[in-house]
Amino acid sequence: MFRLITFLSDYGLGDPFVGLCHAAILRACPDARIIDLSHAVAPHDVVHGAARLADAVPYVDGPAVHLAVVDPGVGTGRRALAIEAGEHLFVGPDNGLLLDAVEAVGGLTSAWALDDERLLAHVTARTFHGRDLFAPVTGQLAAGAPVSQLGRRLDPDDLVRLGHPQVSTSLGYLDVPVRDIDRFGNLQLACRPDVLEDVGIATGRATVVHARGVAWTARRVQTFGDLAPGEIGLLEDSFGWVAVIVGNGDAGLRLGIGLHEPVTLESHVEVDLDGSDARDA
Amino acid sequence: MFRLITFLSDYGLGDPFVGLCHAAILRACPDARIIDLSHAVAPHDVVHGAARLADAVPYVDGPAVHLAVVDPGVGTGRRALAIEAGEHLFVGPDNGLLLDAVEAVGGLTSAWALDDERLLAHVTARTFHGRDLFAPVTGQLAAGAPVSQLGRRLDPDDLVRLGHPQVSTSLGYLDVPVRDIDRFGNLQLACRPDVLEDVGIATGRATVVHARGVAWTARRVQTFGDLAPGEIGLLEDSFGWVAVIVGNGDAGLRLGIGLHEPVTLESHVEVDLDGSDARDA
Amino acid sequence: MFRLITFLSDYGLGDPFVGLCHAAILRACPDARIIDLSHAVAPHDVVHGAARLADAVPYVDGPAVHLAVVDPGVGTGRRALAIEAGEHLFVGPDNGLLLDAVEAVGGLTSAWALDDERLLAHVTARTFHGRDLFAPVTGQLAAGAPVSQLGRRLDPDDLVRLGHPQVSTSLGYLDVPVRDIDRFGNLQLACRPDVLEDVGIATGRATVVHARGVAWTARRVQTFGDLAPGEIGLLEDSFGWVAVIVGNGDAGLRLGIGLHEPVTLESHVEVDLDGSDARDA
Repeated sequence: MFRLITFLSDYGLGDPFVGLCHAAILRACPDARIIDLSHAVAPHDVVHGAARLADAVPYVDGPAVHLAVVDPGVGTGRRALAIEAGEHLFVGPDNGLLLDAVEAVGGLTSAWALDDERLLAHVTARTFHGRDLFAPVTGQLAAGAPVSQLGRRLDPDDLVRLGHPQVSTSLGYLDVPVRDIDRFGNLQLACRPDVLEDVGIATGRATVVHARGVAWTARRVQTFGDLAPGEIGLLEDSFGWVAVIVGNGDAGLRLGIGLHEPVTLESHVEVDLDGSDARDA
Repeated sequence: MFRLITFLSDYGLGDPFVGLCHAAILRACPDARIIDLSHAVAPHDVVHGAARLADAVPYVDGPAVHLAVVDPGVGTGRRALAIEAGEHLFVGPDNGLLLDAVEAVGGLTSAWALDDERLLAHVTARTFHGRDLFAPVTGQLAAGAPVSQLGRRLDPDDLVRLGHPQVSTSLGYLDVPVRDIDRFGNLQLACRPDVLEDVGIATGRATVVHARGVAWTARRVQTFGDLAPGEIGLLEDSFGWVAVIVGNGDAGLRLGIGLHEPVTLESHVEVDLDGSDARDA
Repeated sequence: MFRLITFLSDYGLGDPFVGLCHAAILRACPDARIIDLSHAVAPHDVVHGAARLADAVPYVDGPAVHLAVVDPGVGTGRRALAIEAGEHLFVGPDNGLLLDAVEAVGGLTSAWALDDERLLAHVTARTFHGRDLFAPVTGQLAAGAPVSQLGRRLDPDDLVRLGHPQVSTSLGYLDVPVRDIDRFGNLQLACRPDVLEDVGIATGRATVVHARGVAWTARRVQTFGDLAPGEIGLLEDSFGWVAVIVGNGDAGLRLGIGLHEPVTLESHVEVDLDGSDARDA
């Protein structure tokens, strides 16, 4: 018995898509408790969805079923999956969306293809498997149906995997893409604080943040209130990633960069009056 | 006993409007399960709300109570309604919002005016009948109160009805308004695929889509993945309407048109080198 | 036993923040019913959040726990609070956010600092006390834990209080800031209708609304449908505040003003042909 369900997608909250998935879940499992994690994943952006799902799921206690749909390949030959990971079950497309979250809660126990004819009989539209396939299966699993009854066992090595974001480092330098941007404009970078420390950045001294060819000076801080209004900071965010933030402000707007765009962090460089530069190392 | 409630409005999700309607429902029916279908109906746009409600409700199994509020006439003389339709009950203003959905689940059984003094005693504001009248009634109905106890029976012929969108066709031509636009920018047109086929459009050959004076070539496809990035397609969407879509893109932005604006579909026309055109029929 | 929980924040609905707070609540209180009042409070805007919370909470019957998080000082020395107010419990930061709502449901019974080490042990991030502290406490209170067990009693006089919006009046004049703007663009002003009447404005005759140096003529009405399309009106809104509205339109866009900006209301002035003005009083 799972009862607890989380749901993440790129459906947005404007259209009836999310509500109709809730209806399909409740039809199979009237007592389900559904937690909407995020439906504002960038449209069709599987990498973005995988990142958000992997951050959020470890804060949800199992037993739980996690429904995730970011599915540009809907209605093509891509497989539909259920993945077992300890007390967690994941349901979604076979495009890499689920796997970082599966790792984040302890790793895959078993994988299943949702291609049984009895399931596919309810698929009335080739473009909305959330409503017609994934949500009904999620409800059935939450109601206690064994995954072995709904799916056909797969070799985990056959699952589609995403590449990981390219992070390149050298002494005093780090190139890293923006992994997520939140409502406040905080720029979550695809690196953990220990990587910064490994390359000698941001340990007690100022850091230069290069974004779109402009250089900004940032200070390593512990929380938002440590910054003066307008000041730029580097922070370990609440999911354990390095973030670029602005005191009382929106770092995305200020630096003018967006999701997946690259940022370079660099140890502060002192510039001599004669124009030669001497790295402060 | 209904217990299952759906809710659609133009309230948006930013303000406390939706939450306070939930509170009013739960006050009368603490065990209600409320599914938010959509609160992003275009402000005051009854036609848009009626379209969304009619698409969504058939995917919700009865018994259920469907609360819908798009209500530019709130606080004027317009009536408040409950409509019975088989196992479904609908609650909302008498402005045509409910009737397409009522038809979509099998048609009206009975209609009731919510003008009892005991109901109106709780209306503290003339501008928020959602909170003060419609949601409390929805909760009472969901908790099992008979509609005959809350309302006064109406002649169904007296209900306000909306006109239907103007679709005009001739051989190889179809003029039709945009019925809805979803988060992905897919343009849902107010016509079913069989109409296209009746006028000889989009059956295996390219179609010309005219929008705001610009002509685009579209290909009939089965799902999003059938299109190359940037390519324009025609699709039967997941609610059974013809939609104009763009591979990996946003058709609303690309074609620059919005809700209710007209689109013309035309069979592909071959143009000879001497400038005369020979229809490809 | 509270079971009923409301939740207001500036987290937005795009990120997983709200969902993870729901998860933390449900972990402690699996039967909680959570009503999301609003998560679109302007970022870091405690004054805005306090206004919305105070308007909404009186429409929710106790017993209930009200979680509110607009918390620019997260992770600094600001205290975390629980406040008892009759059958209502409030949980949130000690920055003034909660107190207008506490007054609105009858006033403070007792105040508590949430600084127990057992609570703080679960705070893994200095920037997300919603997930790590406030939501877990909310769940525990909803599940029946006595507030005296979770908090340390505070002197209510020690709580941080917000100033109230500056309203200045003279005969026939009123200067007042915009208190809230809803999805429809209605401009809620920080004054009650009786203040208008006290200074002789808007009692049956036209009012001049000055916004950003432009003067508009407004008519006092009872509901939206009383206005012609495009006409400007003054209304008592559904929370009992004076609002500037536009018939079938968006007053915020039309007048070009935003949250907290000042508006001046003035009795209608007749201008003679020779240019002298005679106040219509």
